[in-house]
This record gives sequence, C-alpha cells and structure tokens, in this order.
Amino acid sequence: MKKAIVLLSGGLDSATAINIAKSEGYEVYALSFKYGQRHLHELECAKKIASKVGVVEHQIAEINLNVFGGSALTDAEISVPKGREIESMSEGIPVTYVPARNTIFLSFALAYAEVIGCHDIFIGVNALDYSGYPDCRPEFIEAYQNMANLATKEGVEGTNKMTIHTPLIDLTKGQIVEWGLKLGVDYSMTNTCYDPSPEGKACGECDACILRLKGFAENGTTDPAEYV
Amino acid sequence: MKKAIVLLSGGLDSATAINIAKSEGYEVYALSFKYGQRHLHELECAKKIASKVGVVEHQIAEINLNVFGGSALTDAEISVPKGREIESMSEGIPVTYVPARNTIFLSFALAYAEVIGCHDIFIGVNALDYSGYPDCRPEFIEAYQNMANLATKEGVEGTNKMTIHTPLIDLTKGQIVEWGLKLGVDYSMTNTCYDPSPEGKACGECDACILRLKGFAENGTTDPAEYV
Repeated sequence: MKKAIVLLSGGLDSATAINIAKSEGYEVYALSFKYGQRHLHELECAKKIASKVGVVEHQIAEINLNVFGGSALTDAEISVPKGREIESMSEGIPVTYVPARNTIFLSFALAYAEVIGCHDIFIGVNALDYSGYPDCRPEFIEAYQNMANLATKEGVEGTNKMTIHTPLIDLTKGQIVEWGLKLGVDYSMTNTCYDPSPEGKACGECDACILRLKGFAENGTTDPAEYV
Repeated sequence: MKKAIVLLSGGLDSATAINIAKSEGYEVYALSFKYGQRHLHELECAKKIASKVGVVEHQIAEINLNVFGGSALTDAEISVPKGREIESMSEGIPVTYVPARNTIFLSFALAYAEVIGCHDIFIGVNALDYSGYPDCRPEFIEAYQNMANLATKEGVEGTNKMTIHTPLIDLTKGQIVEWGLKLGVDYSMTNTCYDPSPEGKACGECDACILRLKGFAENGTTDPAEYV
C-alpha cells in the first residue's frame, strides 16, 4: 500500500482531504501542529478525525510561531476580523494570514515523508473560496514541489517523485462539502473557526465561518458544528 | 540599513556567514534552532558569536525534529561515523544528514523575514567540501528561492525579491577559514563537531571535524577550538 502524509489542521478542508487520501487507497499518516494558534481546540478535532479515518500514525509537532508574531492567529494583540462580505475577503491579504505557515508545514511533512519513505503529501489548500493567502495558490504549490524534489536524499539519487496533492485547490466550499458528505465525513468533528469560544463553539462571523456556512447552504444542508 | 537574517548554527560555516553579512553592511538578525540535536553545545556557541557580531536580535526557535528521527544527529540510537577519509565523504549521503533540515530552517527564516520586512537570508551551506547533503546544493537553493518568492504576501503583490545568500557555497574549507580570518572571526567560539564531549570539546574524528581541521591546515594555522 502506498503511504501518504496528510496535513491535518482539524478544519473542514483538511478533514475532507484526509478522507480523500483514504478513499484513494493510501495508508495515511496524519501530521498536525501546535504552533501557538489561538484556536487550539482544532487539535482536539484533528485527533478525532484521524482516529475516525483510521491512520497509521498521527504526529503532532510542536513549533513555536508566535516568536515571530505577525498574525491574528498567533498574536493575541491582533483581532480576528468579523462580519466581512465574501466579496471583500479576496481583496488583499487578511490579518489572519500566518507568515510562511504552509511553507513550514510542508517542510515538516517533507522531513516526515523522507523518514518513512513516502512520496505523497496531501494538503487541503483552496485557492477559490479562500481568504487571499499567498501560500494557497497553485503557483506556490508547484514551486514547492519542484524544490521538494531537490531537497531530499532521493533528489540527489534522482529517484524522487514527491507529489504535493491539492485535491481541493480549485473547488468552491460548496463543492468541498459535497465531496466530503459523499465520503461520509463527519463535519461535526471539525473546527474551522479562527476565534472559537473556550468550549470550542464557532463564532459564525469570522471569514472561515462565513465561507463554511456558505458551503453547507450551497448543498441545501445545515452545518452540524456548534455555534455560539 | 538593509536587514538580513542569518541562519546561525554555531559552527564554522555559519560563524563565517554571519560575519560576511555584517561586513556587507547588513543589520543582522540571527536565527538558531533547538531541534533535538545531540550537539546542543553549538547553541551556546551561537549565542557567543551573535553577541560578538552585534546582532539586532537572536531568535532561538524550538522545533522538535526527533519526532521523525532518521538521523545520527537527532537519534541517539544511530552512531556518528568517525575517522572517514575525505574522499569517501561525498560518496552517498551520510547518516548525519537530517531529513529536510535546511528546508525547515529556511522556512522559519522566511516567516521571520516576512514579519520584520527583510528580503535577504544568509545560509552558510557549502557544496564543495561538504558531506554529501542534498540540501546544500546550488540547485536546491535556487529552487528554494523561487518558491520563497511565491510564498509570501509580497509574492502576491509582485514586489518580493527575496534572496537566499550562500556566500560559501563554492568555497573549500580552506577558503572559508581564510575569509573568516580576514574578517576577524574568533573560531574558538565555534563548534563544528557532530559528537562533542559533554564539556563541548570536539572529537576530531567525525566528518565535520576532519574537514574543519583540513581548512585550518590549508591556511598554515591551527584551529583554536578545543579537542578531546
């Protein structure tokens, strides 16, 4: 069986991505990060999702990104924006962007892949209904894959064919939810919210919540997650 | 003044690189890692070097690479090879190679750069007298730079010109030491050894020690570092 590493934040997109990897016949290794995010509740979600999917292993790497700050998700001094119009979300890069986060996450996945002898990494990035993040764009992923194919032992030996899979990259949130529901993803286990309550209830008003609610509405169904 | 981030391990190469950045007029930000390395003594060296150079800030990021293992430098079960011939060092990739380490280090530097508004990252990689590491090769650095220019806010805005500086990449250890001595680098502060004694004395027999000693010999001088 082919191995795949799936970056698993515990949100809607990564929960869908890990189920896609599983449905494609991969033996799944999940990788999550404790990186100083304010929405730590998502790690509890990640554990439940990994367990439900049936992964070989779920690694949670601790890395401290708040030493650098610079994002509403890692710096308590910066507020998460609420109640924005969807149209305005892709104008400019919001304060919830965490500098180089996907570059760092993929680099840990690359190390993990090299150690376990894996050539497939899944990441649930989404460039359509996204919040304007530079490291969710197809051109970034392509450049990352090129670099990854030179970075490792197999890159030297010329046998490496590392593939970064982005099954959700050109889908709307509605299409992502549709695919996930077909695969039987239990979205009540996921946390998308940038600013959940202490008990883990979603705010319903940040960019991530607004996009998520739209995704369920487009499928004529309601989101099973709890909102405040 | 232009800002530069310098990856500073505390070894001979990075000590030279940080002095080069300083001599080129950059305002220097040093970045080191506590990554589960067996030669933790190098971090004490990094602090001394950063302080002597006069950096604006020295960040030490804690990241746990031993969760993945796979290297003699992070896994106590794997021994550091001793007494190898220099000619044989570039045949194959040694067990001291840490999977994706430079990819991960550069990714943290990229995050740091984005937060402080810096466009220059220095890394003391060396592809000539090196130990066969894939992530020290020029083609890797070039691919990394291409990726970095798409990964960040400025990548989206099209204004980014992130440069990965590798001043040592095509030099011999002898040439690196020559340059460093001209700049007044105090090599007694550096630790190159993969397997130093508990007091921080170098073993003199690992690949890194052997290459280092050759570098000083080529300059007709002796290494001021302490050996067991």
